[in-house]
Amino acid sequence: MFYGKVIGSVWATQKEEGMDNLKLMVVQPVDFAGHAQGSAVIAVDRIGAGVGERVIISRGSPARALFGGKNVPIDAMVVGIVDSFDVVTPQDGSEDE
Amino acid sequence: MFYGKVIGSVWATQKEEGMDNLKLMVVQPVDFAGHAQGSAVIAVDRIGAGVGERVIISRGSPARALFGGKNVPIDAMVVGIVDSFDVVTPQDGSEDE
Amino acid sequence: MFYGKVIGSVWATQKEEGMDNLKLMVVQPVDFAGHAQGSAVIAVDRIGAGVGERVIISRGSPARALFGGKNVPIDAMVVGIVDSFDVVTPQDGSEDE
Amino acid sequence: MFYGKVIGSVWATQKEEGMDNLKLMVVQPVDFAGHAQGSAVIAVDRIGAGVGERVIISRGSPARALFGGKNVPIDAMVVGIVDSFDVVTPQDGSEDE
Amino acid sequence: MFYGKVIGSVWATQKEEGMDNLKLMVVQPVDFAGHAQGSAVIAVDRIGAGVGERVIISRGSPARALFGGKNVPIDAMVVGIVDSFDVVTPQDGSEDE
Repeated sequence: MFYGKVIGSVWATQKEEGMDNLKLMVVQPVDFAGHAQGSAVIAVDRIGAGVGERVIISRGSPARALFGGKNVPIDAMVVGIVDSFDVVTPQDGSEDE
Repeated sequence: MFYGKVIGSVWATQKEEGMDNLKLMVVQPVDFAGHAQGSAVIAVDRIGAGVGERVIISRGSPARALFGGKNVPIDAMVVGIVDSFDVVTPQDGSEDE
Repeated sequence: MFYGKVIGSVWATQKEEGMDNLKLMVVQPVDFAGHAQGSAVIAVDRIGAGVGERVIISRGSPARALFGGKNVPIDAMVVGIVDSFDVVTPQDGSEDE
Repeated sequence: MFYGKVIGSVWATQKEEGMDNLKLMVVQPVDFAGHAQGSAVIAVDRIGAGVGERVIISRGSPARALFGGKNVPIDAMVVGIVDSFDVVTPQDGSEDE
Repeated sequence: MFYGKVIGSVWATQKEEGMDNLKLMVVQPVDFAGHAQGSAVIAVDRIGAGVGERVIISRGSPARALFGGKNVPIDAMVVGIVDSFDVVTPQDGSEDE
């Protein structure tokens, strides 16, 4: 999974089967200091993630796991809203090796 | 999923099983300000996405989900045509942390 | 899928189960102007792609879809040989936004 | 799989189905000299990996393999805690070719 | 698949289910001129790949294909040891377009 910040939403009227009634959030991957890391991802949210919140995103086939046999062609999902984290080493802290 | 702009089409006469009658669009990933992000992707479109339109692309096995048990070897699909988006923070806006 | 140019072949005598009788081509991802994009990929070809040809490559589990239940551990396949393309916007053409 | 260093933990109260009772560790990919390589990953740990330990991370659908048919939407898992390694060539040692 | 050079091994006593009796090799992706390309990968080897040998690596779910229904959480496997290759165009040879 990756850590990200919800930065918005996106809407589509014309869409594929299986995409109905899905809330699509735009999530920017960030490091634990809050700096953007790479490109934003569009992820399905079913747990009420709001703009500005920090979330955990799962990608690929695992993101479809909760839809079981249904034909839902999504490849990213909000699987948790982060309450807190404890990261003891700066991510670029290779100097301590 | 990622956000992209349809920039063209590609045709192949000689192709694998399961690739018949699929419309193949070239989609450039872009950020919400319209700047290109990485390499273009060839994605199947069944919902009428046209050149210049902004779309949502799903990749990997989830892109095959709508073909059920059929042997369709595709790894990218247009799953939505974007009507609008509301992105409150610039994607590179880590300074607001 | 991604767009690439066939740049060669690779041979292996010692190999895993399921890798017999597979033609392995080396494919360089390129943009539609012909510039290399990232690292070359080794992909299975069953449709007669030759060196110098432009092809469409599918990756990941979808590349295995055509082998059905067989234990074939491949993660990239040539799914089409490109006849022509029509890309109206340069891939780095974000300035037109 | 990739080689990484456990740098922390993350907690989420509000989460998706299947995410209960999973310990989520933050793992920084590193090379064998200890230098950070790309962005940190959030991975499930069931084998007692602690902060500072070097681990092997599996990603994508394989990370879900151990949960069988259960609907667990995770895409990264700690599959081993590294005791030792023997890497004879520096990773950037292409000069010896 | 990608082309790589075996640069070492890694050992883990504490590991997940399904990881027993697997030989874990460290493989550096390289281009056909031998230059390192990105980060090293830890891959399962069952065909006797030794340090210094050039191999073909398959990643993701396809790497698990040979383990059938067994719960083996691996995402990279050595699927061939390269005897020879014939790459006619330098990988960065986009100038010939």
